[in-house]
Amino acid sequence: MSYRAPVRDLAFTLEAIAGMPDLAATGAFPDYDVDVAGAVLEAAGQFSEEVLAPLNRIGDQKGSLYANGAVTAAPGFADAYRQFAQGGWTSLSASAEHGGQALPKALELASYETVHAANMAFGLCPMLSLAAIEALEQVGTEDQKSKYLTKLISGEWTGAMVLTEPGAGSDLGALTATATPNGDGTYALNGQKIFITWGDHDATDNIVHLVLARLPDAPKGPKGISLFLTPKFTVKDDGSLGDRNAFRPVGVEHKLGIHASPTCVMSYEGARAELVGQPNQGLAHMFVMMNAARLAVGVEGVGIAERAYQHALNYALERRQGRSVWTGEANAPIIDHPDVRRMLAVMKAKTAAARAICLSTGVAADLARHAASEADRKKWKAREDLFTPIAKAWSTDVGCEVASLGVQVHGGMGFIEETGAAQYYRDARIAPIYEGTNGIQAMDLVGRKLSMDGGESAKILIADMKATLADLSRLYSGKPVERFDTAIEAVEDATLWLLDQKTNPDAAADVLAAADAYLKLLGDVVGGWMLAKGALAAKAKLDANDGDPVWLQGKLDLYEVYAANVLGHVSSRLAAVGQGGDLLRRISADVLAG
Amino acid sequence: MSYRAPVRDLAFTLEAIAGMPDLAATGAFPDYDVDVAGAVLEAAGQFSEEVLAPLNRIGDQKGSLYANGAVTAAPGFADAYRQFAQGGWTSLSASAEHGGQALPKALELASYETVHAANMAFGLCPMLSLAAIEALEQVGTEDQKSKYLTKLISGEWTGAMVLTEPGAGSDLGALTATATPNGDGTYALNGQKIFITWGDHDATDNIVHLVLARLPDAPKGPKGISLFLTPKFTVKDDGSLGDRNAFRPVGVEHKLGIHASPTCVMSYEGARAELVGQPNQGLAHMFVMMNAARLAVGVEGVGIAERAYQHALNYALERRQGRSVWTGEANAPIIDHPDVRRMLAVMKAKTAAARAICLSTGVAADLARHAASEADRKKWKAREDLFTPIAKAWSTDVGCEVASLGVQVHGGMGFIEETGAAQYYRDARIAPIYEGTNGIQAMDLVGRKLSMDGGESAKILIADMKATLADLSRLYSGKPVERFDTAIEAVEDATLWLLDQKTNPDAAADVLAAADAYLKLLGDVVGGWMLAKGALAAKAKLDANDGDPVWLQGKLDLYEVYAANVLGHVSSRLAAVGQGGDLLRRISADVLAG
Repeated sequence: MSYRAPVRDLAFTLEAIAGMPDLAATGAFPDYDVDVAGAVLEAAGQFSEEVLAPLNRIGDQKGSLYANGAVTAAPGFADAYRQFAQGGWTSLSASAEHGGQALPKALELASYETVHAANMAFGLCPMLSLAAIEALEQVGTEDQKSKYLTKLISGEWTGAMVLTEPGAGSDLGALTATATPNGDGTYALNGQKIFITWGDHDATDNIVHLVLARLPDAPKGPKGISLFLTPKFTVKDDGSLGDRNAFRPVGVEHKLGIHASPTCVMSYEGARAELVGQPNQGLAHMFVMMNAARLAVGVEGVGIAERAYQHALNYALERRQGRSVWTGEANAPIIDHPDVRRMLAVMKAKTAAARAICLSTGVAADLARHAASEADRKKWKAREDLFTPIAKAWSTDVGCEVASLGVQVHGGMGFIEETGAAQYYRDARIAPIYEGTNGIQAMDLVGRKLSMDGGESAKILIADMKATLADLSRLYSGKPVERFDTAIEAVEDATLWLLDQKTNPDAAADVLAAADAYLKLLGDVVGGWMLAKGALAAKAKLDANDGDPVWLQGKLDLYEVYAANVLGHVSSRLAAVGQGGDLLRRISADVLAG
Repeated sequence: MSYRAPVRDLAFTLEAIAGMPDLAATGAFPDYDVDVAGAVLEAAGQFSEEVLAPLNRIGDQKGSLYANGAVTAAPGFADAYRQFAQGGWTSLSASAEHGGQALPKALELASYETVHAANMAFGLCPMLSLAAIEALEQVGTEDQKSKYLTKLISGEWTGAMVLTEPGAGSDLGALTATATPNGDGTYALNGQKIFITWGDHDATDNIVHLVLARLPDAPKGPKGISLFLTPKFTVKDDGSLGDRNAFRPVGVEHKLGIHASPTCVMSYEGARAELVGQPNQGLAHMFVMMNAARLAVGVEGVGIAERAYQHALNYALERRQGRSVWTGEANAPIIDHPDVRRMLAVMKAKTAAARAICLSTGVAADLARHAASEADRKKWKAREDLFTPIAKAWSTDVGCEVASLGVQVHGGMGFIEETGAAQYYRDARIAPIYEGTNGIQAMDLVGRKLSMDGGESAKILIADMKATLADLSRLYSGKPVERFDTAIEAVEDATLWLLDQKTNPDAAADVLAAADAYLKLLGDVVGGWMLAKGALAAKAKLDANDGDPVWLQGKLDLYEVYAANVLGHVSSRLAAVGQGGDLLRRISADVLAG
């Protein structure tokens, strides 16, 4: 079936939930207004529907091809990429100075949701270019900006993030690639890297690699890592391409999903490279773009969930089986069976919640740069920091869960590859792993983000949720309100407990044992908050006769479905938050292997 | 990595949790004792480890082959099947009268867990033969028994269950295949069937199909379906093979997983068939064996979970990354990071709970036939009926969840097919679908099983769990006891509420809206009960110095992990149980598509 970009939902989420009006009010985006946003989303959605979605299946079947030290993109992908670049989709949020459109990051994220939904393997290519753009904008020299950044923004070239080595994954501090000065200001890069997404391909003339490596005599561990830029073809001063550089792919991985995204093993054999930013500050520079990339991966989770949901919904409307308890119809469409309806409703509610979390994080990131006062910028930066691990981990878990429910809605047909549901289930599974596993996200949340300002940003979040709770009784009575109340209380309890543990060095393992459950708790409850805000906004529009009443009423009902099916999880999250490190330590390797 | 059959755990679960001593006490299995069980499990485990596990990966890669109207099993599978049959593994629980070993079903299920764990695609072949054996033992004529049953029990031939048609899946009442009398007591079968597991292959000389079809002038719907037997090659009176029968595979499906299990589209074109059992009683006959097959699928969930767990554990012991907060070691094995340990501990606890639920259901099935008194047989039959949908649905959900956690423990390597973790994630996904989707199981539970005896069997279960709760305070204080207490209360509340709704015809949709959450609630809590019983048994052995103390203490700790990470779910299950059909109905097709 074909993908239909959820333009109305994206626009509603940006405006009514994620806080886009606050961003517009800063005046930092003079070209931005609701109509511009609508036009951009409409055009992005159309491109995704018409160009990218039709390539998704063949990309899965054929994949990218590695032969003789070079990668050929899956059929149609190189051409689609060039159209994508020509359409201006690689420059939405980039600075005008180097050819970008200077639109909000949040709008770019919303547009990219449709790209990832239509074709997740394709979306990874521009997504990593955006990360490279982010890095060069922040720490590149003027020369690097004019030579490389402009071509990345225009989409003429793509970027790749080159971090992982066989012995250095979650712990990048262990990496061993080296960069030796050539004596002319350039460096010779040597080493082998793995899991390099779109590290090679034939869609553009050049590929800009941003590579982590060690300078000679650099300190051991994470403080001795620097960031380097090395292009597939060297670039002359006039901008024309020179020699082929000394790095190449030596293979691509055979993966569970995203077959059309070449995951390269790369070998650097004296590749000519430039230093980016400061020596030994590579990890810090990389983490700047990693935050953006983590949020982008969260959006992938949303996209794949939306795609899987639409696919399942269509099947449930068409497939007939059994008598409906509601309509009495024999051989009814399966959507008229309560348990199928439940699956679809939960899929839609969770997808909407994840979308709102990601776009709210995007708006926070924009406000962190553009809010009027220093105090506001600091506040929004703290919100961005707090939300980024949730956006990444919670949304990608939703991606997997919704894709799995999508298979289930299809029954036996879901297990047949030709149906298409299985591809989403396979593709979705990478997102909880890359750009920092979801376990790493949880540790980042409890280990750094929660306490970096003494818990202030979490406390502000709790206060914000309580303000929404106060309004919620205008819409509902009983359970839907009580559940949000209980949920906020659970977040408050868990947060205070964790902040307390953080002051005790002996409790380090307790905090880590709690990490996963705390992130899930926060995600569940913030997701509910998002849908509650959506319900309030929809009610205001309903009262003002402003919009499609069925669709608006749906926002109110969707919060209720979420409250019944997700907010109830808080007690299980709390139980696991408090399980303690000692218990897990007692489940020793001997016990586990016994 | 290689699979290691969990023989000690299987034996412990049978004896100390599932109630095997009660079965032995009936005297119905004079050849059975603990030593026999140990020897059978040891031998089954060895066959699974040495013969079946090594074929798992090639089966995934090559799959079965369809060409020219015939299926060739994946490389090595036909030979492995013949060894399997020669080893007596198709006859464990079959009656001695027709060549079986007359051992308990529960022991057979425990043995087959190792088969499914080693090679799920292989295991499906004998699993469906066992279902055919069950049907013929119950409703076959003497002639059918001597002609077909003996060969199925010896494993010389295999059996296939032939139910589904394109328009008749969950609703078998809609099927349209026909059987027309030939005038000589035989019938001519016509129709197309899909999703026929191991419907054709080259591992045996003959294949016995049990097919649902309609007699001429049969009533419409489920009451007009009869069961037929049709062999691939007709069988002469002397037992030798005659003509090739008029049915054949017309293709095999390209699936997400279990590639070595041929899923056939079968065409019956006047195939010569015999009636099995009574005319128009086909669904009833089929449901007899379907109950057994559903339990067997639950065991598949356990097997794939165990396999995925072992794979992840081995990786976590070998892979080194980062500093351990526990040991202080730099570049520590990742098992020494609390969040990885948490994943492994939860995987092990849920797998153990699912194993105990399935084997308890098996013992209940044995006691339903062999308990001394009619009253006891009735009681155990009710327990078997109540537990079967839980064993099927909850255990297969655990299979998927544990397989997904297994991928996650591997980090990026988990997404690479060569690692092996991805295959379990793919293979596991079918089990919540076939033999009645897990949604169908939930409807069966709340719609029939719960209320078939006025709720009596659920009340007995609750009383049994309370008895264990009373003992539990000898082992733990505080949370581990409180959580089980709360959990039992939740089951009681939900059960009484559902039984109450069942008396109100207007509440039919409310009951169906609650079905999934109620099944999950019952599974979570019964799983906790199982591990609590295991902990009590382990404590008794510890006190008696009877067995490996580390392994026994592990049983006590495992219950605690389960209590903290799973039993807390009860409040979310309760919330979803009570969500009501009206809410879901309001989430209309228009809202869902909006």
